[in-house]
Amino acid sequence: MGTPAAELVKSVLGEHGPLLQHALAGYLDADAAGCDVYALASDYPRRGGRGLRASLCMASARAFGARLEDALDSAISLELLHNAFLVHDDVEDESEERRGRPTLHRLHGIPTAINVGDALAVMSLRPLIANQRRLGPRLTLRILAEAERMARESVEGQAIELRWRRENALELSESDYLRMILKKTCWYTTIYPCRIGALIGTRDGAALDDSLRFGFFLGAAFQIQDDLLNLVGDPLRYGKEIGGDIWEGKRTLMLIHLLGAANPSERRDLTESLARPRVERSQAEIDWILERMHHYASIDYARNMAHGLAGAALHEFDRAFGALPDSRDKHFLRALPSWVLERA
Amino acid sequence: MGTPAAELVKSVLGEHGPLLQHALAGYLDADAAGCDVYALASDYPRRGGRGLRASLCMASARAFGARLEDALDSAISLELLHNAFLVHDDVEDESEERRGRPTLHRLHGIPTAINVGDALAVMSLRPLIANQRRLGPRLTLRILAEAERMARESVEGQAIELRWRRENALELSESDYLRMILKKTCWYTTIYPCRIGALIGTRDGAALDDSLRFGFFLGAAFQIQDDLLNLVGDPLRYGKEIGGDIWEGKRTLMLIHLLGAANPSERRDLTESLARPRVERSQAEIDWILERMHHYASIDYARNMAHGLAGAALHEFDRAFGALPDSRDKHFLRALPSWVLERA
Repeated sequence: MGTPAAELVKSVLGEHGPLLQHALAGYLDADAAGCDVYALASDYPRRGGRGLRASLCMASARAFGARLEDALDSAISLELLHNAFLVHDDVEDESEERRGRPTLHRLHGIPTAINVGDALAVMSLRPLIANQRRLGPRLTLRILAEAERMARESVEGQAIELRWRRENALELSESDYLRMILKKTCWYTTIYPCRIGALIGTRDGAALDDSLRFGFFLGAAFQIQDDLLNLVGDPLRYGKEIGGDIWEGKRTLMLIHLLGAANPSERRDLTESLARPRVERSQAEIDWILERMHHYASIDYARNMAHGLAGAALHEFDRAFGALPDSRDKHFLRALPSWVLERA
Repeated sequence: MGTPAAELVKSVLGEHGPLLQHALAGYLDADAAGCDVYALASDYPRRGGRGLRASLCMASARAFGARLEDALDSAISLELLHNAFLVHDDVEDESEERRGRPTLHRLHGIPTAINVGDALAVMSLRPLIANQRRLGPRLTLRILAEAERMARESVEGQAIELRWRRENALELSESDYLRMILKKTCWYTTIYPCRIGALIGTRDGAALDDSLRFGFFLGAAFQIQDDLLNLVGDPLRYGKEIGGDIWEGKRTLMLIHLLGAANPSERRDLTESLARPRVERSQAEIDWILERMHHYASIDYARNMAHGLAGAALHEFDRAFGALPDSRDKHFLRALPSWVLERA
């Protein structure tokens, strides 16, 4: 059992799950007849996910006064785009596992995985265009413009992270890291779901800046916690290879902290290890890097940062959204920062 | 000097070129400040292309009564999406050259190339959303729905071609081939530009089916001619490696014809060669396949097919669009089938 806040989040995610899976299946099956790309596109979605982004979008819309159905197409679009990102990210990061199974490019090759990611991105457009039935043309276009902004931030964030690896960047600060995850993770995971929920609920842009701040703090706490689970999580529950981020040379907050704390000799070894491609690293190296992260308290440092960001998210929620009418959806949103820290 | 028809097409493409490059630069430069992904995204567009798709869109809009400016954002969107497809296709096909220079993934690696293609696809959305300033929200959403359909057809076509290579498909018919290029090439190269041009010009969907037929015949002739140039074109003008399609095992109409015409022993050799990855093929094998294509008149067969399709495009144009008011844009559209056959 977790805290009441975390229990509420689990319960709401559990209620939304079947609804989302049903609506998602409608978009996936509708296309299954003609072409094998849709069967491949439905692989990751059918492996199951929490549907966090979709739930956040629907809860935000309801907390701001909309009906659940008004946000369902936008929520489905988000899940499809999320899966598009996962497929391409897995190729770009040379990841081995996703949701407990081999990644798509390991099963079907890189060319097919690229095209399946493209298909999922295209598929995410249809529900956004279908919004016009319920929301009318102007709000539909407003949401599409928000989606374009969000997708743009995401590819920019991905570009920053890819450049860091390509150039073996070592002189990175905490603020470099936060700017990267603002773009790469927060925009599509938390900021955009809150923003379009608020747009659907209020039909104007009043809450957009507040959503940006709350979403940034929440999303950043979420990403750091996710990276911590990659290092010290339960392999059975995490669904990806434990330590995979170190194998991939990913610039996590823990690695950035370690690079700053290490002595010159360790720093040389780290630099040399990170410069080599994944296949030329050894398990002993990975173990050593993880041990040094513990030694220099890089893990604790990141955990404290995640707690600080979650606290800021809570504070921002109360400041900006505290006056919203009392509802289960509002409680769900307010409980997310606590849930982020407790998930394992 | 070519025929008057081909001269007209070259002249109009030449007039549109600077206009398109200027408008395109506005979308590319606006984003250049923040992130290196935009510099990489502008690489292929700046290598120069004919802007065929954009010109087709603008000419179609004007032939149907719109002003040039009404179609400019849609035309720019199409050029951005075309370049997104090129970047991902080059990775998927393991292509070496594009427009006379190394492909993007050879310059910057596969992870970055995937993300740059994603960036170009996202960038193609902004001008489509910007359409609302001139065209209003309903027509803007109608064009977005057409764009979604077009992109969907394109990824389906790509999926078919990738499956043929993945499964080393050998039992392919002419109609399999035509269905594949209908989806992969014709929808985005000719059908969609004509359709949205007609939509912008007429504000209703009356000409959509006619555009589909004209676009299919024109686009199919274009693709076959493009594949012929890959085998027997002028290396200096073509911009990609001559014979590259054979190296890549691409199922062109010539290869499909050869597979049907070859004797059992040759067919065994072809099957075995196509089953191996690109790096395990030799120049002698490529030369032999090309020689057999000449021997069995596979080249002539494809050339005749391209002529037949171009003739059908002309016939369809006169039937469906012959009553449009006389204009330079109308003459340009009618000249395209001839130009397709003459380009080298």
